[in-house]
Amino acid sequence: MIDLSEIEASQVDARTKGMPGEIASLPLSAIGAQGWNVLREDLPLPLAVMRESAIRHNGDWMRQFLKATGAEIAPHGKTTMSPQLFARQIEDGAWAITIGSVEQLQVARRYGFPRMLLANQAVGAQNQRYVVNELKRDPEFDFYCFVDSVDLVHQLSSAVQEAGLERPLQVILEGGFVGGRTGCRTYEEGMDVARAVKAAAPHLSLRGVGGYEGLLRVPSAEESTKRVETFLNGLIEMALGCDREGLFGAGDVLLTAGGTVFYDLVTARFKEAPLSRDFKIVTRCGCYLTHDSGEYVKRFEQIRERSPWVDRFGPGPQAALEVWAYVQSRPEKTKAILTVGRRDISFDSAMPTPLKWLRPSPGATVADLQPIGPDHVVTGLNDQHCHLAIPEDSPLRVGDMVAFGISHPCTTFDKWQVICMVDDAYNVTSAIRTFF
Amino acid sequence: MIDLSEIEASQVDARTKGMPGEIASLPLSAIGAQGWNVLREDLPLPLAVMRESAIRHNGDWMRQFLKATGAEIAPHGKTTMSPQLFARQIEDGAWAITIGSVEQLQVARRYGFPRMLLANQAVGAQNQRYVVNELKRDPEFDFYCFVDSVDLVHQLSSAVQEAGLERPLQVILEGGFVGGRTGCRTYEEGMDVARAVKAAAPHLSLRGVGGYEGLLRVPSAEESTKRVETFLNGLIEMALGCDREGLFGAGDVLLTAGGTVFYDLVTARFKEAPLSRDFKIVTRCGCYLTHDSGEYVKRFEQIRERSPWVDRFGPGPQAALEVWAYVQSRPEKTKAILTVGRRDISFDSAMPTPLKWLRPSPGATVADLQPIGPDHVVTGLNDQHCHLAIPEDSPLRVGDMVAFGISHPCTTFDKWQVICMVDDAYNVTSAIRTFF
Repeated sequence: MIDLSEIEASQVDARTKGMPGEIASLPLSAIGAQGWNVLREDLPLPLAVMRESAIRHNGDWMRQFLKATGAEIAPHGKTTMSPQLFARQIEDGAWAITIGSVEQLQVARRYGFPRMLLANQAVGAQNQRYVVNELKRDPEFDFYCFVDSVDLVHQLSSAVQEAGLERPLQVILEGGFVGGRTGCRTYEEGMDVARAVKAAAPHLSLRGVGGYEGLLRVPSAEESTKRVETFLNGLIEMALGCDREGLFGAGDVLLTAGGTVFYDLVTARFKEAPLSRDFKIVTRCGCYLTHDSGEYVKRFEQIRERSPWVDRFGPGPQAALEVWAYVQSRPEKTKAILTVGRRDISFDSAMPTPLKWLRPSPGATVADLQPIGPDHVVTGLNDQHCHLAIPEDSPLRVGDMVAFGISHPCTTFDKWQVICMVDDAYNVTSAIRTFF
Repeated sequence: MIDLSEIEASQVDARTKGMPGEIASLPLSAIGAQGWNVLREDLPLPLAVMRESAIRHNGDWMRQFLKATGAEIAPHGKTTMSPQLFARQIEDGAWAITIGSVEQLQVARRYGFPRMLLANQAVGAQNQRYVVNELKRDPEFDFYCFVDSVDLVHQLSSAVQEAGLERPLQVILEGGFVGGRTGCRTYEEGMDVARAVKAAAPHLSLRGVGGYEGLLRVPSAEESTKRVETFLNGLIEMALGCDREGLFGAGDVLLTAGGTVFYDLVTARFKEAPLSRDFKIVTRCGCYLTHDSGEYVKRFEQIRERSPWVDRFGPGPQAALEVWAYVQSRPEKTKAILTVGRRDISFDSAMPTPLKWLRPSPGATVADLQPIGPDHVVTGLNDQHCHLAIPEDSPLRVGDMVAFGISHPCTTFDKWQVICMVDDAYNVTSAIRTFF
């Protein structure tokens, strides 16, 4: 049973990045009652916030998408690593939560998430031992993990036997592509692994076929689509092979793929898989919930171009994450330095984008927010600083507040242990905790 | 008074990255008594560890350097953000701890560090209020921060007055360079700021001149040296100007600069500053303590080339940080995928370097470690994965352990809340906590 009370009761104090230096220790659940407002400088900057209205909109949007496609979602929890957001996604109808490592599984299990998909290999003595013992401890725990080598199949089978686990460990055959990450590169390699799983019964059970197509993107949209479809066809071929040879264990077969770039293609293509038995399509997009102001704006435009039917769900996902910082210096006519750096905001996919600014004043509100033109450009980040190229006549002064949009949510989430949720007036309504 | 007992008593459990999934909650101080050994797979991977012997060696090395140069050190705490390592540096004779933001100051003050240097601007209502109130609360608290604009001087002066602080806020005039980060670009700009500080007496007191030269490095070593010396001369000019005009407050003048790239030049050049009064040279290198296996290996070689006298302190700093991971897949003849990613290891300066590997076996020891040749190269990192190019005949198999050296300590520290210290046999002897 999902229980977040421990998180809600966990203490936050002046050591928690984003919290005022003057506060005494307070429980996370009390943050919404402090009456804090970002625009009134009730919190120090840099500060990451999530816009509640955007999160709600994005959850609704995805629900419509899934309803229309008949697919399930196991949103990738590695994006946020926030059990509070996982719970929200489960309430929104998610079938399971995906994670990328056993350490992430340990976090989710602490809060009782009952169905988890490790879209990765569980390797190493401690990791494998934890998984099988957790399956032993909780008969309701429904767990799936990827396998892509006969070596790993043997290791997992040994771990199940050593622990005396009396139900099979459910595995998913992972297909891959040349130049990609994990996953069997060819049909034959895949079938060898699947046969090894079958041979490891009753310790292992093959429950599906999956992969990750996100790294297939190339500059040409058509070429990306072609490559992704070829890859998805390869996964379906493997599933058909397993189906023909009777390698799948009991239960619906799972077909799973889908980061936040090609989930439209995944749901459409898998739907046509001519399997002889019932199957479930499980997408794993993790970045839809917060979206962003960079990478995923472009990616969503590509989804709209190749799958115009998504427009019937209304306006697409909106950026929920912002990181706020102060102008700390205007050392040159065309340069400002701000108090946000590589430790506070994503920089792996693209530099942050300044969205708007505010000159602090008593009682400042959203009406005082000013737009920032495209002539203000982030040119670099150090650990704690942002270099912003500005026009000579930029209004920005030392002490002004600037809100940045981010590119790639995963690498902003992992820089904050607590993130405040705000309403559209930038009142802090609650807070979430992350576990990285 | 520095008191780390709260950290030592803080609980660690299976939600803490790097901790075994099977442990119950235990205090940080108990980690060394668990009998864990990394090579025996007592801990899950990925795992960051610090080699105790390298930390000790590097501390000793720096102590010799400072003794020979007569400089003080206020090591940059932003590197590790670990009060336990700060305390170690104070024991090693550090004059103060440097931090890069007020949020970092809040962490250090929680543990009672008495003298702190904010090598940055304190901007924003919450940040300024915290600083002046903390100075009010603790008369022993000795604090310095950088100023580089008249606007900021006015803001700080107001904050002091609003709080009714009855001693001056000590500030350091920051000089900069065109194309750099913060800091006054010209002598005249610097003098304007210094005069504004003087005018803000008794609320502010000008205690020195400083800057950060680390961004001046260019590919040519000679050119880098020339640029750094020009910059340091500029800082000295500003200090002489303040000296002549009587702008400094009471006490020794501080001359402060020095990241971990040019501290030899900083100490040598500042020593010759012809000030009319006593002054203290304060370097701020943060990365000497753990060193690395990339960036700072090159930088230290450059130090040896331009300042061969450092060789009399014996072998230079050694890499203390390693991040261990498993081979999770060998999907192609010349490719392995490992369980370490952008969330676990630095990637901003250079990719990690594989150092050695081990095939796990009961009772494995350092004698079982195998070297890895330069033909094994990290070609990319995703959030949770490492792409390693390998020769076809690489011995690596799924389940093997690989130790990576890192490049740029700051961005590995910020990815771990707990890091185990190990002896040379990879026994875990203790653990430190970080606060990011």
